[in-house]
Amino acid sequence: MIRVILLGSGNLAIHLARALMADTKVELAQRYARNNDNADYFDTSIPFTVDLKQLFTADVFIIAITDDAIHCFSKDLDLADGLVIHTSGNLSYEALQVKNGRGVLYPLQTFSKSKELNFNSVPLCIEVEKASDLAILETLANSLSNIVYHINYEQRIYLHLAAVFANNFSNHLFKIAKDICDKQQLSFEILKPLIIETSNKVTGLDPYLAQTGPAKRKDQKVIENHLKHLDKNQQEIYKLLTKSIHKSYL
Amino acid sequence: MIRVILLGSGNLAIHLARALMADTKVELAQRYARNNDNADYFDTSIPFTVDLKQLFTADVFIIAITDDAIHCFSKDLDLADGLVIHTSGNLSYEALQVKNGRGVLYPLQTFSKSKELNFNSVPLCIEVEKASDLAILETLANSLSNIVYHINYEQRIYLHLAAVFANNFSNHLFKIAKDICDKQQLSFEILKPLIIETSNKVTGLDPYLAQTGPAKRKDQKVIENHLKHLDKNQQEIYKLLTKSIHKSYL
Repeated sequence: MIRVILLGSGNLAIHLARALMADTKVELAQRYARNNDNADYFDTSIPFTVDLKQLFTADVFIIAITDDAIHCFSKDLDLADGLVIHTSGNLSYEALQVKNGRGVLYPLQTFSKSKELNFNSVPLCIEVEKASDLAILETLANSLSNIVYHINYEQRIYLHLAAVFANNFSNHLFKIAKDICDKQQLSFEILKPLIIETSNKVTGLDPYLAQTGPAKRKDQKVIENHLKHLDKNQQEIYKLLTKSIHKSYL
Repeated sequence: MIRVILLGSGNLAIHLARALMADTKVELAQRYARNNDNADYFDTSIPFTVDLKQLFTADVFIIAITDDAIHCFSKDLDLADGLVIHTSGNLSYEALQVKNGRGVLYPLQTFSKSKELNFNSVPLCIEVEKASDLAILETLANSLSNIVYHINYEQRIYLHLAAVFANNFSNHLFKIAKDICDKQQLSFEILKPLIIETSNKVTGLDPYLAQTGPAKRKDQKVIENHLKHLDKNQQEIYKLLTKSIHKSYL
């Protein structure tokens, strides 16, 4: 049984708490947050504190807070024992200002409070400072998910960057697509099969080969007609992505 | 039994031919193309011609060729009878220079030769010039797919535009994400669960609410670090989409 304490109460902490509670090899001994604002999203049986001095002992302390806060927050931790890890895609374990063993468990997924998710299929990227800490982090990661990768800091930055393009930016394009539908009182439902296929397609076909549409075909008439129907911000994005697709298929 | 002739041999024609052949209410009587280059993708039992003068009679003629060619191509059609439709998201039925009844059947989906697809779940947007032609097009569309919408020309332009953002541009972002992985010799496999979740998420959650990531959080440190790791083209796209996300969450 790995004894875990979870620090943080955001989107990721909410999903992590659920996965840790469901995990038979793990005991979620306590959770900490600055305040109890998101209390409704957590199992009430988990002991909770807002006071770092009241932290119990544990094998692993998981810091799931925003990147900017990790460095300063970790300075206030005074832990006799246990591995301390953060969950950021962008920071080295060196961001953790603790005398304990340090590591990272970066889940490569998008988490929202109100969207259920099967944690077993979330890719977990792990790294530890000291080889002697690897076994416990590996055991923890493997019991949380079926997909565990050993990824160093440099690789992790690039993975996070790729994830920003694949998820954050794509989601924003879905938002623009919905804006266009909304303005014409067209239901966003009509687009959903296309959105699902857009992702499904690249699980079996290289996205380079999966590309279709007027930009790929260099169909200038359609492109010009499209631009007339967009607002300024949408036009800028349309032009830049069309140019980038053009360059890819010279 | 609706007797159909299919004109064209590209990605969409390939998928349409399969769906028409599988449809018990439809007889795919003949197919036409300029040449037989894609012959391998079509059932050899479908009578084929490269000569428009050899076209059989039919109830519906489906023109599935590139937008640019539809206007001129249709001028060469000399058909005694039958409804003539095209499959473009961007053209009115008026693009069809025929004396026959005219209409549109626009499938809102992305089609690639080498990617199988269940046509039953492809949204079909239909429109006819004469009300008297509606019944046959409706019957044809409903037997090909479970999702049929009546969409006029103006609406269709916006739907196609939304589809360009939702599919063409998102796919290009997946391509960039893969480029980033490839350059670091990281497997694109690691990103696939995230890509699948990106689409799944917005089927149940408004994309505005589904947004996560450094741009949404206005995490300037991460954004600046990311920009250092990108090439010029990627930087331009990163900056513009980050700016657009910022503006959406003021």
